Amino acid sequence: MIPDARIAVIGLGLMGGSLARALSSRGARVLGYDRQWGHLDAAVREGVVHEELDAQLAGLDTADVVVLALPAEVARELMPRIADRIGAARLVMDLASTKRGTVAAAEAAGIGSRYVGAHPLTGSHRAGWGASRASLFEDARVFLCPTSSTTAEALRLAESFWRSLRAGVEVLDAETHDEEMAWRSHLPHMVSSALAVSLHEADVRRSVLGPGGRDMTRLAGGSPAMWLGIAEENSAAIQGALLAYEGHIRALREALARDDSTTVRDFLTTGCAWFDGDPGAPLTRSMPRA
Amino acid sequence: MIPDARIAVIGLGLMGGSLARALSSRGARVLGYDRQWGHLDAAVREGVVHEELDAQLAGLDTADVVVLALPAEVARELMPRIADRIGAARLVMDLASTKRGTVAAAEAAGIGSRYVGAHPLTGSHRAGWGASRASLFEDARVFLCPTSSTTAEALRLAESFWRSLRAGVEVLDAETHDEEMAWRSHLPHMVSSALAVSLHEADVRRSVLGPGGRDMTRLAGGSPAMWLGIAEENSAAIQGALLAYEGHIRALREALARDDSTTVRDFLTTGCAWFDGDPGAPLTRSMPRA
Repeated sequence: MIPDARIAVIGLGLMGGSLARALSSRGARVLGYDRQWGHLDAAVREGVVHEELDAQLAGLDTADVVVLALPAEVARELMPRIADRIGAARLVMDLASTKRGTVAAAEAAGIGSRYVGAHPLTGSHRAGWGASRASLFEDARVFLCPTSSTTAEALRLAESFWRSLRAGVEVLDAETHDEEMAWRSHLPHMVSSALAVSLHEADVRRSVLGPGGRDMTRLAGGSPAMWLGIAEENSAAIQGALLAYEGHIRALREALARDDSTTVRDFLTTGCAWFDGDPGAPLTRSMPRA
Repeated sequence: MIPDARIAVIGLGLMGGSLARALSSRGARVLGYDRQWGHLDAAVREGVVHEELDAQLAGLDTADVVVLALPAEVARELMPRIADRIGAARLVMDLASTKRGTVAAAEAAGIGSRYVGAHPLTGSHRAGWGASRASLFEDARVFLCPTSSTTAEALRLAESFWRSLRAGVEVLDAETHDEEMAWRSHLPHMVSSALAVSLHEADVRRSVLGPGGRDMTRLAGGSPAMWLGIAEENSAAIQGALLAYEGHIRALREALARDDSTTVRDFLTTGCAWFDGDPGAPLTRSMPRA
C-alpha cells in the first residue's frame, strides 16, 4: 500500500521523523507537520517530507493515512480538531506508548471506525528529528489496538502498513495493552530511573560503571516529559507493578539482614531461571498474531 | 613481563579461562588447574594451559605469578594451603568481585607482601571455560587492592600485568572497593534480578520485552552461586544501597498514587540529568590512578 500513498505525519520527533524517513524511502508521498519549525524545515530540506502542512493542517484532507506521532495527551486533544479535516482518509493512527486514552478519544471524536492505536515498542534515549532514522521500526514489535468500531479493513490496512516497514505486529485491546506495558516497558523504565537517582545521590558517575551498570541506566536517559505523560496515562497499572517490585527489593534486603542464604539463593535462582527459560531470540519479521 | 613468565591460574572458568587465554596468546607459560576435569582437559587440548597442576598443586612453586580465579570464599580457604607452596612467586592475586575478605585472608596467611587483590569489572552472564575468551579484559577496568604489607614492587608488577592485557587499572583499598562496588555493580545486579523475579511472577516472558527491557534483565542471568557469594561477602554495603533504592521506588509509587506530577517529574528529571551529565565515554586503555 505504501508506494504512492499520501501519508500525513503530524509530529516529526524520534518516532514521527523515523516514520517519515521509512515511508519516504519506500516511495510514499509524505505530508508533514511539526510545531517546532526547525524539525519541519530539516525534514523538507532533506527531502523526507514532500508537502508541508501548516498549523491549521490545511491539506490534511488529501491524505490516505494520518499518523499522529505525538505524546498521548497531545494526540487526545488534537482528535476532535482533526475529525472534520481528515477527508476520506482510510486509516488514522497515533504512536503513543499508552493506548487506552487515545483509542477512547478517537471513538469520542467520531473517527473510531477508521482508527487504530499503534505502539511501536522501539525508541532511543535520544529524542527529536535529529535522532530519527529510517530503520527504527525494522524488526520492532508494533502493538495495534482497535477501537470498538474499527472496521476490519482499517485494521488490515494498519497491519499491512507496519509489516511493509518490516515490523512485527500484535493486535490486542487497549486495556490489555496498557496493563501489559506497565510490566514490559514502564516498570523497566522506572526501575532504571530509580537506579540513576540512587547513584546520583551516592555520587557515583555513570562513567565508572561497568557494562552491566551502563545497560541498567540507559533507559533513565529517556525524555522526562514523555515519561511523565506515560506515568500519568497508565498510573494505576504502573503503581501495581512498582508495589510488587518494591516487595522483592525489600524481601531481599531483609533476607540479607538476617543472613538468610536460602531466601537470597531462591531470589537469585528464580531470576536466573526466568532468564534461562526464555532468553529471547531476536525478534522475527513475521510474528504470530496475539 | 608476560612473555616467558610462568603464570599459574587456579580455576579455569569464565575469568580464569579468559586470563589463561590472554596470557597464553601473549607468550606466557601457563600452569593451570581446575577441579572440573573437563575444563582443565579442554584448556590443555586447546594449547592454552601448558602445564597441568594436580589437586595438590605440585609445581606451583615454579610460578612467577599465581592467580586464584575462584569465588571469594574458595580463594580465602585456599590461602593458608598455598602459602608454603608458592616458592619464590613475586605476585599472588585473586579475581573475586569483593576484596575485603581475600585481602585479609592473604595477610593472615602470611603472604600479604606479595599479594594484590584484583577485581576485573567485566564478565558475562555465561560461566565456565566454554564462555572464556582472550579479549575479556581488553578495555576493562581492573581494581587493584593492596594489603597493608604489599610491597611497591608487587603492586607495580600487578599494574604492569593488567596493563599488558590492555586493561585500565585503578588502585584503591579493599574497604573502599567493596563499598563502591555495592553501588557500581552489586546494586545494579540485584535491581535486575528483582525485575526478573517480578516479571516471572507477572507471567511476562523475556522474549516479549523490547530492547530496553532486555538490557534491564540481562544481569539477572548471572550465576546465582557466584552472586550469592558476593551478596554474603558484601552484605552490609549492599543492604545500605538497597535501602536507599527501595526508598526511591516507594516515593515514586506514592507520588503516582496522589497524582503528584511535580515529584514524578523531579524523579525522572534527576535520573535523566545524571545520565546526560556523564553518559560515559568508552573506557580508555590508560586510566588515571585513583
